[in-house]
Amino acid sequence: MIVLLTDFGATDPYVGQVRLRLAKDAPGIPVIDLFHDLPNFAVQASAYLVHAYCRDVPAGAVIMAVVDPGVGGPRKAIVLRAGGRIYVGPDNGLFEIVARREGVESCHALEVPSWAAPTFHGRDVFAPAAAALAGKTHRAGHPVPLTRFPDWPDDWPRVLFIDRYGNAVTGLRARPGPAVLVAKGRPLKRVRHFAEGVPGEPFFYENANGLFEIAAREGSAAAILGLQLADPLLIVD
Amino acid sequence: MIVLLTDFGATDPYVGQVRLRLAKDAPGIPVIDLFHDLPNFAVQASAYLVHAYCRDVPAGAVIMAVVDPGVGGPRKAIVLRAGGRIYVGPDNGLFEIVARREGVESCHALEVPSWAAPTFHGRDVFAPAAAALAGKTHRAGHPVPLTRFPDWPDDWPRVLFIDRYGNAVTGLRARPGPAVLVAKGRPLKRVRHFAEGVPGEPFFYENANGLFEIAAREGSAAAILGLQLADPLLIVD
Amino acid sequence: MIVLLTDFGATDPYVGQVRLRLAKDAPGIPVIDLFHDLPNFAVQASAYLVHAYCRDVPAGAVIMAVVDPGVGGPRKAIVLRAGGRIYVGPDNGLFEIVARREGVESCHALEVPSWAAPTFHGRDVFAPAAAALAGKTHRAGHPVPLTRFPDWPDDWPRVLFIDRYGNAVTGLRARPGPAVLVAKGRPLKRVRHFAEGVPGEPFFYENANGLFEIAAREGSAAAILGLQLADPLLIVD
Repeated sequence: MIVLLTDFGATDPYVGQVRLRLAKDAPGIPVIDLFHDLPNFAVQASAYLVHAYCRDVPAGAVIMAVVDPGVGGPRKAIVLRAGGRIYVGPDNGLFEIVARREGVESCHALEVPSWAAPTFHGRDVFAPAAAALAGKTHRAGHPVPLTRFPDWPDDWPRVLFIDRYGNAVTGLRARPGPAVLVAKGRPLKRVRHFAEGVPGEPFFYENANGLFEIAAREGSAAAILGLQLADPLLIVD
Repeated sequence: MIVLLTDFGATDPYVGQVRLRLAKDAPGIPVIDLFHDLPNFAVQASAYLVHAYCRDVPAGAVIMAVVDPGVGGPRKAIVLRAGGRIYVGPDNGLFEIVARREGVESCHALEVPSWAAPTFHGRDVFAPAAAALAGKTHRAGHPVPLTRFPDWPDDWPRVLFIDRYGNAVTGLRARPGPAVLVAKGRPLKRVRHFAEGVPGEPFFYENANGLFEIAAREGSAAAILGLQLADPLLIVD
Repeated sequence: MIVLLTDFGATDPYVGQVRLRLAKDAPGIPVIDLFHDLPNFAVQASAYLVHAYCRDVPAGAVIMAVVDPGVGGPRKAIVLRAGGRIYVGPDNGLFEIVARREGVESCHALEVPSWAAPTFHGRDVFAPAAAALAGKTHRAGHPVPLTRFPDWPDDWPRVLFIDRYGNAVTGLRARPGPAVLVAKGRPLKRVRHFAEGVPGEPFFYENANGLFEIAAREGSAAAILGLQLADPLLIVD
């Protein structure tokens, strides 16, 4: 199985071009479009999301993750093994949270062929590697150290993603205890599910991926609160 | 075959998470993303759309439909058999129009496992059930009455959906006769296809799913008329 | 393999309806959603994009392309063979650039069955034909001349598509030489990849599909320059 997480968007042609390459190189292998709306260019925010949204990916699966504003430049292309899964993508921090929480089993360099388009390694470098890894025909490159980002916090009190309902996903792992989350200066109460909320009053809860998330009952929390990507948040224990 | 209709949006990760579950629980079974832009939280509007857009789904197929603002609350999760098809989703009215037009063959409760995320039954309750139904391994729950909504009209003179072109799908079944549909106080003429329309003058027609729909020739009827979801309409026979 | 390029959008139900038809008529044949955000109604712009984005489609594949504001009217429905690939769609110019660059091997008419919805030939005419062509069960219609558009330039100095990052794809084939592209009166420098750009200063480059494209480093060139679809451009050699 090959699982895709990118900031390519679901409506542009880039996912289709990747899937065309996978269909040619790995015919018959299931491909899952898990998340194509990772925040544009936002590697650190995406690093927390990649970890959280891959929790259900089965062991042995190949995860191709691409948020890669430095494509074509000096950053390495890598194959990372962690937590029983195989990650393919840029060595720019996108796998920092995976590495921190799952541990690094191995990290190898991917060669960039001379014909690869310097602006689309998703299609020309990562997809062929993902196909070869899923089909067990990949020849490992040389071992390289994963570039680490030790300054990034274990939990990031920021808005990382705003979904179509206007729910705001945070970089904070859910845990028992906190009763209040402050967003835009407004204290929000904790609920278990949407129907517990009061219409018009945003709240927060543990989302289905283990992160704290802000929402409103049958409304857009982002619109009510004026939330935007990267807005800071505060947990009150 | 498993067919999905939701208000999850095509760009958020929720469809991907459902498909990941289906790939694990029902490998090899085709999955069709039929409609993921059902209007957010709008159960009644979606009920008319679910019926209209499932007309071509083959008998025996499993249809997972989720517009479910009450997820995690007291509403039941059900498996409904109607018109030779198997519907899985919340018992909140989403299948009212299907039941009214196709008749109810049977309705059974779905158990909600204790580990299910209270905000994402699509992934944790409905998808596993759809997979088991498609794979013929589902164990039927106890029979329950489908909750009915007798006050909902057979045809709903409202804008239910606005597509990417700016076409407005209504809750009115198309039929011979009506020559005028009034939207925003403006009488619209009936045509058979777009090229019959006059540029800049919105019109209405029978759409490819048996509903009346409002459009403009190479333009956005919604923008020209200022149409929004739930706007009322009037048919003049 | 069946490859889809349309202006249906990825979020509306139309792609799902086409895929439902393909799943019924061509079970087991891989279907690739290559590009569903072709510019609405814009046949000429789409003609350049269809050619550029199909370069990697393997020989023998069936390409169903639909940008078809004249659906239901007198324009013909066709099967075009060119460059070893089989194209299905409307005879409205959408394949003009393919024909010009690949040559026309053959062009046959597609019959429109009387039951076809006059507003959705994608589902009722082109998808069944694509399925039959992919499954080798298509019975060729009578030969017809492809309608040609000789006034369209070989390279079109316009913005044809703006992607989710705010990058603007042009109708100009990339080639060595040009050092400056002028957009909105502003001369843009050429780079090889994004990381060569200066933040805040849009640039242009050869994109991964052989066209010149305008972008900005970790930002939206369209927003910075105020670019819109169909905006004219100027190359300075």
